[in-house]
Amino acid sequence: MKWSDRRLLDLFGIDHPIIQAPMAGASSAQMAIAVSQAGGLGSIAAAMLTAETLRTELQIVQQGTGRSINVNFFVHQPPVADAAREAGWRQRLEPYYRELGLPADAGVGGPVRAPFDAELCDVVLQFKPKVASFHFGMPDAALVKRLKAAKIVVVSSATTAAEARWLEAHGCDAVIAQGAEAGGHRGMFLTDDVASQAGTMALVPQVVDAVKVPVIAAGGIGDGRGVAAALALGAAGAQIGTAFLLTPEAKTVALHRAALKAARDDSTTLTNLFTGRPARVIINRFIREVGPLCADAPAFPLAAGAAFPLRAAAEAKGSTDFMPLWSGQAPSLAREMPSGELIAALVSETEAALRRAG
Amino acid sequence: MKWSDRRLLDLFGIDHPIIQAPMAGASSAQMAIAVSQAGGLGSIAAAMLTAETLRTELQIVQQGTGRSINVNFFVHQPPVADAAREAGWRQRLEPYYRELGLPADAGVGGPVRAPFDAELCDVVLQFKPKVASFHFGMPDAALVKRLKAAKIVVVSSATTAAEARWLEAHGCDAVIAQGAEAGGHRGMFLTDDVASQAGTMALVPQVVDAVKVPVIAAGGIGDGRGVAAALALGAAGAQIGTAFLLTPEAKTVALHRAALKAARDDSTTLTNLFTGRPARVIINRFIREVGPLCADAPAFPLAAGAAFPLRAAAEAKGSTDFMPLWSGQAPSLAREMPSGELIAALVSETEAALRRAG
Repeated sequence: MKWSDRRLLDLFGIDHPIIQAPMAGASSAQMAIAVSQAGGLGSIAAAMLTAETLRTELQIVQQGTGRSINVNFFVHQPPVADAAREAGWRQRLEPYYRELGLPADAGVGGPVRAPFDAELCDVVLQFKPKVASFHFGMPDAALVKRLKAAKIVVVSSATTAAEARWLEAHGCDAVIAQGAEAGGHRGMFLTDDVASQAGTMALVPQVVDAVKVPVIAAGGIGDGRGVAAALALGAAGAQIGTAFLLTPEAKTVALHRAALKAARDDSTTLTNLFTGRPARVIINRFIREVGPLCADAPAFPLAAGAAFPLRAAAEAKGSTDFMPLWSGQAPSLAREMPSGELIAALVSETEAALRRAG
Repeated sequence: MKWSDRRLLDLFGIDHPIIQAPMAGASSAQMAIAVSQAGGLGSIAAAMLTAETLRTELQIVQQGTGRSINVNFFVHQPPVADAAREAGWRQRLEPYYRELGLPADAGVGGPVRAPFDAELCDVVLQFKPKVASFHFGMPDAALVKRLKAAKIVVVSSATTAAEARWLEAHGCDAVIAQGAEAGGHRGMFLTDDVASQAGTMALVPQVVDAVKVPVIAAGGIGDGRGVAAALALGAAGAQIGTAFLLTPEAKTVALHRAALKAARDDSTTLTNLFTGRPARVIINRFIREVGPLCADAPAFPLAAGAAFPLRAAAEAKGSTDFMPLWSGQAPSLAREMPSGELIAALVSETEAALRRAG
C-alpha cells in the first residue's frame, strides 16, 4: 500500500505507519525484529529491564535487523516508601497468602520497574535506536537533550489533549493518543481521574486538533479496520499491542493466551491492583474480590511486590486468579500468526477497509 | 459523496449514512426535520413524551419533511417502588435541598420517562415513521410484531457484542454499537458493569463480526473524521449526538451550551445520579460530591425525582451544579451551525478524511 500521509514514515524511517506497542513482559526482541523487518516499528519494552539486560536486548535486536527500532521506558517518579500502607495492604491480602500456602511476608519478588535514568540513557546512546518512547510523561530535560543531540526521535503517550500539548511543549516529536481501550498501563500523568479518560474515537481528533506534531492512535486497534479508522481520524499511524499477544514471538504465558482467546469486548477493566497504577487487564478473581480500583493499594510500582507472589503461586497451580492478564478492549481481534505476517495482514486489511469505506 | 456501502441508505431510505441521535430534552422536531431534509436520518426522542405529545411531535415532523424519520423509545422495566431507598436518598440530598431553600419533600417534578407500550405503539402505527429505535433492549415481541407488520424498520442499541447478538435474535434490522464515549444513557441491558464497557474503536469491529445486520457506530463521533473512521471499522453508518447540541434547533439551555463550549475530552464521566442509570455528562459539583456512580441512587428513572428540583432551583440561580450536562467525550467537536448545514459539513468532511487516509 502507498500511504498518502508520510509524516510518521519519514520521521521513523519505516514503510508502514504501524507501531508494535512495547509490552513489558510480553513483547520480545524477536517480535521487535519481525515487526521492523516487515516495515513497521518494532519496540523493546525496557520498563522492567536493567541497564545490563537492556544492553543484551538491543544487541540481539540490532543483530536481527538494521531497520528502525523503538525503545520504551517508564518515567514515573520513584515512590516514597510508606511502611504503614504497605503493611495494611499485606494484611488485606493475607487471606489469599494463607489460601495459597504463602508466608505472609513472602519475598517481594517479581520484576522491578525503574524509571528512565542517566544509566539507561547511556545504553540508549550506545545503541542509538531510531526512536525512544516514554510512558507517564517525559524524562528530565537534560536526558531529553542528550537523546535529541543523538538525533533519537522522542515520543510519549497522552491520555488527554492537555497531556498532548504538554508533551509537545516538552520536546516530543510525535505523540501517542492513548484511548481508554488500550491494554496495559494508562499513560496518564497530568490527571489521575480514570473515569474521565476518553476512548480512542473521541480522543484522537481532539489531540490532532491540539498539537502540531504527528499523532499516533492507540487503544482498541486490533486489525486493519482499526488502522484505517485511526488514519481517518487524522492520526499519522497506529500503535497496536494486544493483537500481538498471541504471536509466537510474544512471551505471553499459556494461561494468559488461553484467557485472551476466551475474552470478549467486555472482559477487561482498569485496575491498580497489580502495580499501583491503573492498567487494563482481563477481569479475574483478584479484581472481582479486591478491585478493580482500590485506594489502599501501594503507590506504583510498589503494589507489584505484594501481588507478584500470589500470581506466581496461583500460576503454579494452573490458575489465573492473581495474574495480570494484560489486554486491551479488542482481545477477540488477536490472531495466532507470526508478527511479521501480522504486519503484512494489517497493511492489506487497512487498504481493504479504506477502499470499502471510500 | 457517493457512498460505496448502501446497506443503511437502502434500509432507511436516506442519502447519507448519518443518524442524528435522539436526545430526550435536547433534540427537537425542527432538528429532525432539518437532518432528514439534508439527507440524514432525523430522530424524535420520545422517551419523555406522552402519547399525546408524541402525536403532536410527529404531526410537526411529517408536515416539515416527507423524508424518513426515526422515533426513539426507552424500553426499561418499570421500577419497583422502594420507599426506604427513596427516603434514604432524599436524606442524602437533604443538605443540598436546604442550601437551595427547597423543602425536603419538594414535589417530584421534572419529566417522566415511561417505557414503550401499546398506547405509544398505536401512535407510531398511526404515523408510520420509517424507523423505530429503542434503548435498553427491545419491546415485547407482540409490539415488535406490530411494528414489523407495518414495515417499520426496528433498531436498538448494543453496548457489547453479546447484546448485539441478542438484539439481532430479537428482530433488530440494524444494531447501534454504542461505544463508551457516547453521551447520555448507556443502552446496556444484559450487563450492568460500567467499568467493562468498550470504547467505539474496540466495540464496532467486534459487533460487526458478531452480527449479520448492518451496524451503526455511536460514541465519540463528532465530525466527518469520526464518520469516516466508523465506516472504516465496518459500520454501515454513524449516529451523532453531542455535535448537534449547539445547533439552533437544539433545545439545549444556555447554561448547558456554555458548559459544552468549555468542555474538553476529559470533562465527562458516567453517572447514575440524575436518573438511576449510568449516563455520560459533563462533571459538575453534584457528581464530584455524591458520584459519579452511587449505589444508593433509586432505580431508573426514579432517581430523577429527587435530582430534578435541585437542578431547577440551581438553574434559576444561574448554576449548573445539579444540571445533567449531557455530553459525549468529544464536546470540543460540537459546532454552532444549523443542523442541515451540519449534515452537509459532515458529508464533505467524511469524504475529505477518507481521501486523506487512503
